[in-house]
Amino acid sequence: MKALKEFNRESLGESKRHIYFMRMALSLAARGGVSVSPNPKVGCVLVRDEKVVGIGYHRRYGGPHAEVEALAMARDKARGSTAYVTLEPCAHHGKTPPCAPRLAEAGVSRVVYGFRDPNPKVNGEGLRILESSGVEVIGPVLERDCKWINRGFIRRITLGRPWVTLKGALSVDGTACLDSGESKWITGPMARQKAHLLRAEHDAVLVGINTVMNDDPELTVRALDGESPKKVVLDGHLRIPLEAKVLKGGERIVFTSQEAPMEKLTCLRNMGVTLIQVPSVGGMLDLSQVLLELGRLGVNNLLVEGGARVLGAFVDSGLGDMVSLFVAPSILGRGLQIFESFAIQGLGSRVEITDHMVRQAGHDLWLEGVLRCSPAL
Amino acid sequence: MKALKEFNRESLGESKRHIYFMRMALSLAARGGVSVSPNPKVGCVLVRDEKVVGIGYHRRYGGPHAEVEALAMARDKARGSTAYVTLEPCAHHGKTPPCAPRLAEAGVSRVVYGFRDPNPKVNGEGLRILESSGVEVIGPVLERDCKWINRGFIRRITLGRPWVTLKGALSVDGTACLDSGESKWITGPMARQKAHLLRAEHDAVLVGINTVMNDDPELTVRALDGESPKKVVLDGHLRIPLEAKVLKGGERIVFTSQEAPMEKLTCLRNMGVTLIQVPSVGGMLDLSQVLLELGRLGVNNLLVEGGARVLGAFVDSGLGDMVSLFVAPSILGRGLQIFESFAIQGLGSRVEITDHMVRQAGHDLWLEGVLRCSPAL
Repeated sequence: MKALKEFNRESLGESKRHIYFMRMALSLAARGGVSVSPNPKVGCVLVRDEKVVGIGYHRRYGGPHAEVEALAMARDKARGSTAYVTLEPCAHHGKTPPCAPRLAEAGVSRVVYGFRDPNPKVNGEGLRILESSGVEVIGPVLERDCKWINRGFIRRITLGRPWVTLKGALSVDGTACLDSGESKWITGPMARQKAHLLRAEHDAVLVGINTVMNDDPELTVRALDGESPKKVVLDGHLRIPLEAKVLKGGERIVFTSQEAPMEKLTCLRNMGVTLIQVPSVGGMLDLSQVLLELGRLGVNNLLVEGGARVLGAFVDSGLGDMVSLFVAPSILGRGLQIFESFAIQGLGSRVEITDHMVRQAGHDLWLEGVLRCSPAL
Repeated sequence: MKALKEFNRESLGESKRHIYFMRMALSLAARGGVSVSPNPKVGCVLVRDEKVVGIGYHRRYGGPHAEVEALAMARDKARGSTAYVTLEPCAHHGKTPPCAPRLAEAGVSRVVYGFRDPNPKVNGEGLRILESSGVEVIGPVLERDCKWINRGFIRRITLGRPWVTLKGALSVDGTACLDSGESKWITGPMARQKAHLLRAEHDAVLVGINTVMNDDPELTVRALDGESPKKVVLDGHLRIPLEAKVLKGGERIVFTSQEAPMEKLTCLRNMGVTLIQVPSVGGMLDLSQVLLELGRLGVNNLLVEGGARVLGAFVDSGLGDMVSLFVAPSILGRGLQIFESFAIQGLGSRVEITDHMVRQAGHDLWLEGVLRCSPAL
């Protein structure tokens, strides 16, 4: 296995070519979106004599892998080609036969990969199969980017839990809700549309029971085309009203405690709601258990939409990976702060946001960044 | 007086020339900085046959006006030239003789001005003198920009009070101070340097007594070269310790109430501190009175540095013109919010920030914008 020296003079031309085609494979991979969950997003480009002879990406869970799509397009031109794949080709029988041997059989002479599959069933085995079949293997190339678009998959495979994005809308002085309870709307229509885009990019959306009681949200994707995510509610005492909008259709999961009233539990189950009981820690459902259960249900990417108590608890437990905050350029004064239930003793315990990026969403600012406590991918 | 039609086809070439030279005059004007206070910042460019024959700007209070500097440089080349002046030339005897007649006497044939002097002693009189002397007068040109750099001067002349900038450092979730009182340092060294730059650009810096007691700030310009501003403290009961750093040297102004203890008052006066007693409103010194007094002392631009109670009071009273917020990309959780003493009943009463701009200051974000309640210039 040759590790790519990106700044080796002799191979600079080749390195650039690798990066160029890997970017192409990456943009193909990204098209898979949430439809491939819980699988990873993968793209593949086959190149022979500097020409692209086949492209493919994993379109939906259960569908053909990226490599298979690309090979089908290239047909006999695959022979002697270089395959650029964002993820190490698989070595195991899943829903489809393994890709590594298929690439070798098709006569592909070189495979450039993005990142090693963290799945213990693969983890280097795909690369070994290729090498032992005489295929040259180069990588990782653009590893950081290839991992980033699959951060949810990697989290679930390695830690058993989804990638957690904490989403909130607040004023520049940190208020997410007035003391009167009023919070609609702190941000403008463009920010709300972006929030729907976020939902469409996640496998599941989670809120606490207070948000259900106060705002009665639908948690669906409406402002744009896109699949609605699974809807998850944390509700320790099953206070959720049966007519809550969140219970209307789609995949509904309610987490509750062992103390939940049996009758309501049965009633909700009969409505088709998935009920999961987890232990409580300090009056709050154990979030690490909640996440492991969601991981088991195949959730790669989880969007936590609030309220302040739930968002704060995710920060407090160190289980948040990223924030996506819509900040209105206005002063609301004293009120409920966005991470109200979280507090620190000294500035040394602050939770830093790294790699942050600020964009404009209409009149509002949209700040995204990774929490420093988020484990490396 | 010809109003400039900026998009008139026939005069497009000329309009562009006007804008070009007015920009030059503007950048000269800006060089004046705080040293010209309480005068306005003015720049002047004399142009004859497409060539710049003289430039000048008002350098310091009491020094020659921009027009006089430019005429001195141009000498006899001033005859037949066009003068670009960011502000209507003055008509009254102040520290120096009036500029409008001097431009006419020097044979300047055309004056392009930035904005009309709001000073009731001038207010169009300068332009009338020029016109009646046969000088062609064109303007306003780049009025918004010319007014913006003199926003403090305009505020003081028209409303009797300074332009008020509310400065703060906070986390992305709006916390300016932990419950423990810890606030040093929420933002990084680059943000603190920019904060010193802000001080150097203001005539006076104001803090509340709590900030003096908790942080004992010097309120001087140290992180870069620049003049230290007047130091202003709001201290209703004269709790200020005589050894407070803010009382060491420079111009020191303490606002207090009628109830201030006479002995401490005398003691501070003997230290060279200016003591001003103003009425209290709801347990807080009347900020509108404070601002009028500062206006009387020639303060064009006031920087309010906190704490949360004072900042909130300025928002509450509608007397803040602008915010300059350094936002650390970190989560601090529940704590003292930056505008803690301000609260609204409903979202309709939010204080919007218009024309906001976000820059990077080291790792921190620097958000500046004008409050919608700030009266038009």
